[in-house]
Amino acid sequence: MTEASKRRGDDRDPPKVEARWGRRAWELLEAVRRRAPLVQCITNFVSMDLMANALLAAGASPAMVHCLSEIDDFTPRADAILINVGTLSDGWLPSMRAAATAAARAGHPWVLDPVAVSASDFRLEACLGLVGLRPAVIRGNPSEILGLSSACRIRDSKGADSSHESMDAVEAAKSLAQASGAIVAVSGAVDVITDGLQVVGAHNGVAMMQKITATGCAVTALIAAFVSIDPPNALEATACALSIFGLAAELGMDMANGPASLRMHMIDSLHGLDEHTVTSRVSISFLT
Amino acid sequence: MTEASKRRGDDRDPPKVEARWGRRAWELLEAVRRRAPLVQCITNFVSMDLMANALLAAGASPAMVHCLSEIDDFTPRADAILINVGTLSDGWLPSMRAAATAAARAGHPWVLDPVAVSASDFRLEACLGLVGLRPAVIRGNPSEILGLSSACRIRDSKGADSSHESMDAVEAAKSLAQASGAIVAVSGAVDVITDGLQVVGAHNGVAMMQKITATGCAVTALIAAFVSIDPPNALEATACALSIFGLAAELGMDMANGPASLRMHMIDSLHGLDEHTVTSRVSISFLT
Amino acid sequence: MTEASKRRGDDRDPPKVEARWGRRAWELLEAVRRRAPLVQCITNFVSMDLMANALLAAGASPAMVHCLSEIDDFTPRADAILINVGTLSDGWLPSMRAAATAAARAGHPWVLDPVAVSASDFRLEACLGLVGLRPAVIRGNPSEILGLSSACRIRDSKGADSSHESMDAVEAAKSLAQASGAIVAVSGAVDVITDGLQVVGAHNGVAMMQKITATGCAVTALIAAFVSIDPPNALEATACALSIFGLAAELGMDMANGPASLRMHMIDSLHGLDEHTVTSRVSISFLT
Repeated sequence: MTEASKRRGDDRDPPKVEARWGRRAWELLEAVRRRAPLVQCITNFVSMDLMANALLAAGASPAMVHCLSEIDDFTPRADAILINVGTLSDGWLPSMRAAATAAARAGHPWVLDPVAVSASDFRLEACLGLVGLRPAVIRGNPSEILGLSSACRIRDSKGADSSHESMDAVEAAKSLAQASGAIVAVSGAVDVITDGLQVVGAHNGVAMMQKITATGCAVTALIAAFVSIDPPNALEATACALSIFGLAAELGMDMANGPASLRMHMIDSLHGLDEHTVTSRVSISFLT
Repeated sequence: MTEASKRRGDDRDPPKVEARWGRRAWELLEAVRRRAPLVQCITNFVSMDLMANALLAAGASPAMVHCLSEIDDFTPRADAILINVGTLSDGWLPSMRAAATAAARAGHPWVLDPVAVSASDFRLEACLGLVGLRPAVIRGNPSEILGLSSACRIRDSKGADSSHESMDAVEAAKSLAQASGAIVAVSGAVDVITDGLQVVGAHNGVAMMQKITATGCAVTALIAAFVSIDPPNALEATACALSIFGLAAELGMDMANGPASLRMHMIDSLHGLDEHTVTSRVSISFLT
Repeated sequence: MTEASKRRGDDRDPPKVEARWGRRAWELLEAVRRRAPLVQCITNFVSMDLMANALLAAGASPAMVHCLSEIDDFTPRADAILINVGTLSDGWLPSMRAAATAAARAGHPWVLDPVAVSASDFRLEACLGLVGLRPAVIRGNPSEILGLSSACRIRDSKGADSSHESMDAVEAAKSLAQASGAIVAVSGAVDVITDGLQVVGAHNGVAMMQKITATGCAVTALIAAFVSIDPPNALEATACALSIFGLAAELGMDMANGPASLRMHMIDSLHGLDEHTVTSRVSISFLT
């Protein structure tokens, strides 16, 4: 799945960046490298390679475990769980539900990537059910967050909601965050992250990331790794993970000749990020 | 699955190239970039990453959706469907059949890649059933097209056909095209494309593509994207997609040190193709 | 799955290398290139791309075939079989058992990669069952070999075995080799290979391989290809495959800026290995 709605590189005013964000991003990245959190990924087939390599490059330990027979034994040991519905099928949905439930029971955060949530009724119903299992974070592109947010509101109001069509992605994200209790992140020219009240913008990234499959999936797994370091501050960790990944892409872009070399240089750069680069270039700011 | 039968780089007379092919290839590539056709891919696990990235690099929108529960909702929205049996299993076959049927009903082209069709009776039967659902294009390597063509003829004649063993791939392709109503493409030193009467050769490509897994799978998805632009002229679109992909490999080869760097540079080159390069270097000609 | 236990680059005395190992590694690599053994891989989803490309780069023919309906027709034709439980599920286990059985019946070697064997009871039971089907080689990281070896001993003794906790990986490997009849390889700073009596060390490799997903999976497939050339001497073939892959990583490391570029250069280097480099740089020695 790709994120056709992602648009970067446009003109805009420089964000009001606070230096503490760069410092915080570096602290979290360092903690990921030091603790190597185990991130269980139940994800689509397209993304597995890039996701595992992005987690490794950041210092985390990926584990692609999706068999229902293993959830009880394995999931409680994972520091965070990533659930991505990109190539959803009937057989995998029970594993996703069981892993989300086990994570909640173990007090570990889990993160939802509702890829192409509006592609089918089956997928929408599956995602709504997963939202009910209390993800710590939900990340999607604008159309995914709009679709999921509006479906939540329709379900809650037991009727049609005509207003959602005109709602922009930020309002949809706030509404979804309030309804679900999750931090909601919307990828875009500026990644927007909200807990339903505060809205934060993560400004790093390059437009060509849209031309590489599974970059959105990979960064959601990185969010899971970061949130596992400091679960009570999931808003902050989510913004930092998004900017760290975007910064790696910016550095990679300096060496890239197209999407495939960008992918390689982005992962190399993620692996090599140093303190000065992170603290000076991470660009996060409060939008409200 | 690989295409051991692919042989490129051999000496040969320069083909009788017509300039209009380069122009046509550029028009189709430009249309893919402009319209970003949605290509639903039901494909083997090995190919998903390269296929999605090749489609993105060409400007199309890949969607790896294979769950039977989603076909009714999703497939009618796809501009083209790619069905590849590389890692076929009993569970996926109903989805393939349903998607092919839904594509036909929606009037959208679907393309078949009968990977390793002769590997088992199960696979051969599956492919014969899919051929009956009217693909717009079938692409394979010589042994795949020989195997599928001969099986079709045996089935039609209700008996053994001894002649097929001596039939070359071009004759097999023509026979399969006539029997199936599909455009048939055979990958090789020269890619051969036929509607059962006309035979066209696409001459771009490099030998080392054989050493990268899933290049054949990826180009078949590109064929689906190109054919979606102009379904009535599927022969032309198929030849152009094959040459465009081969041209990207030629450009990539200039920078490559082996198969892994060729893969990267090929995708970068596909993304960056410009009008002059396409119109001057696409090499397609009528062989009969 | 990653191999967190892999540690390379540490200081150590130069191994007692015998020149005949370099010669033997080259002979086997040349034979793989010449004969292109067909290696059927039933492997986890994360590894498929890298595994297929590593086999192609080495000159072998990969075939990712895992459908139970195809085992009877296809497996007897394969020169070697690779079974990797990385993303094990109930649906795939019967195929793994059937392929191992078919390989034994055809007299072809099969190789087991017991990824994360201790992740769940389900996985441990599955691996113990597979060990009983007589793999020619078992390769894992130290914790996998320790886990599998100790489980075998506990099962054999019908009771708890307290000694295994203090057993190091080499002793565990010897014990597992004796219990299973397989060659056992343990990846690490030095890869250790044993038939239960002799212990051989393969010294090539770089630490950053740990930061690329599925390198362990890929080298196990390469072991299958090498062992297919000379099944009676599986110890030798296993050591040579491990050193050849490690040597490719060493050459790749000279050009790499991080794990993603290492992955690319490693595969390019594997494809381009020449006689002088192999015979002069393969570093294998008897440890006992």
